[in-house]
Amino acid sequence: MNATAGKIAAPAIRNGVDVGALFATIAAIKADPGIAEFRFRAANRWLGGDRNLTTVTGFFGAKQEQPHAQPFEMECGEPPVLLGQDRGANPVEFLLNALIGCLTTTMVFHAAARGIEIGSVESTLEGDIDLRGFLGISPDVRKGYREIRVKMRVKSKGSPAVLRELAQYSPVFDVCSRALPVRVEVETF
Amino acid sequence: MNATAGKIAAPAIRNGVDVGALFATIAAIKADPGIAEFRFRAANRWLGGDRNLTTVTGFFGAKQEQPHAQPFEMECGEPPVLLGQDRGANPVEFLLNALIGCLTTTMVFHAAARGIEIGSVESTLEGDIDLRGFLGISPDVRKGYREIRVKMRVKSKGSPAVLRELAQYSPVFDVCSRALPVRVEVETF
Repeated sequence: MNATAGKIAAPAIRNGVDVGALFATIAAIKADPGIAEFRFRAANRWLGGDRNLTTVTGFFGAKQEQPHAQPFEMECGEPPVLLGQDRGANPVEFLLNALIGCLTTTMVFHAAARGIEIGSVESTLEGDIDLRGFLGISPDVRKGYREIRVKMRVKSKGSPAVLRELAQYSPVFDVCSRALPVRVEVETF
Repeated sequence: MNATAGKIAAPAIRNGVDVGALFATIAAIKADPGIAEFRFRAANRWLGGDRNLTTVTGFFGAKQEQPHAQPFEMECGEPPVLLGQDRGANPVEFLLNALIGCLTTTMVFHAAARGIEIGSVESTLEGDIDLRGFLGISPDVRKGYREIRVKMRVKSKGSPAVLRELAQYSPVFDVCSRALPVRVEVETF
């Protein structure tokens, strides 16, 4: 069992991922790129003050609606020092979750496809924000994180450089590290 | 009660936000910008296959460690069509939550400071991803969302244009809509 074991014998399940299904998906997309078009959605309702609740019920992908097994709810809050009730992680903490969740899943799936076994992944990350941007005190201070640092500790015989490269196929890493058009519409009633 | 009511009489609480505390925070930061330096953190553990769990316990801000009232856990998963067990929202859905949670809180807080009353906010958002980028099938296809569209429906006498401008002070909007340095380190054992 080593980083190139896939060349010798490909198990059906590697890193908890069904490698046969993964290769079948890739083949299907190569034959019909329309299968690769996904549209993810969320709805959110303000609960007053610092609190709001997102619900995700499904998405479109592989040419059809894909309802989740059950709706997923995510409640955002703010801590007392940011004038909130601390009832949920705050949005910039949820962003860290989205980033590390995506880096981890991406590394694990791509490693499975390459025949690289992964035994465990434990990560920490941190990001710096100067609130003068958000508060509109200093127009030259960035409103969001100015940098995020991620440390992933992986039990694997794969090389750290290759695993890092695989992780960086992550869609959320891509969104954070490159500009993205976000179109915001507001209507009032 | 109108969009400029703040000029006439400022209530202590507007939109569920303690406006006095908000102005006091802004004054304190203007006097000592070091108070505005925040560092948010998260830890994540892979649970096998498509599943991983993020824990957030606290952060640094206003010159001290700020533990949350309780740890917040966020479990990421993938749906069956993406070879997962559908045990949690997936990372790109968590990203939508981070974005809309941040836009909502930012709009509400800034509106409170400007004397704009908000009665309700309900939003939907959607983002398009072509999985050929993530899967490494087409190097010219973006790995993450190529666009996110947000619709916010707000009960308010404030103008939609002003509310949109206020929402866009959002740190997560800033991260998504502008490039950000994300530094990923991988070590193996």
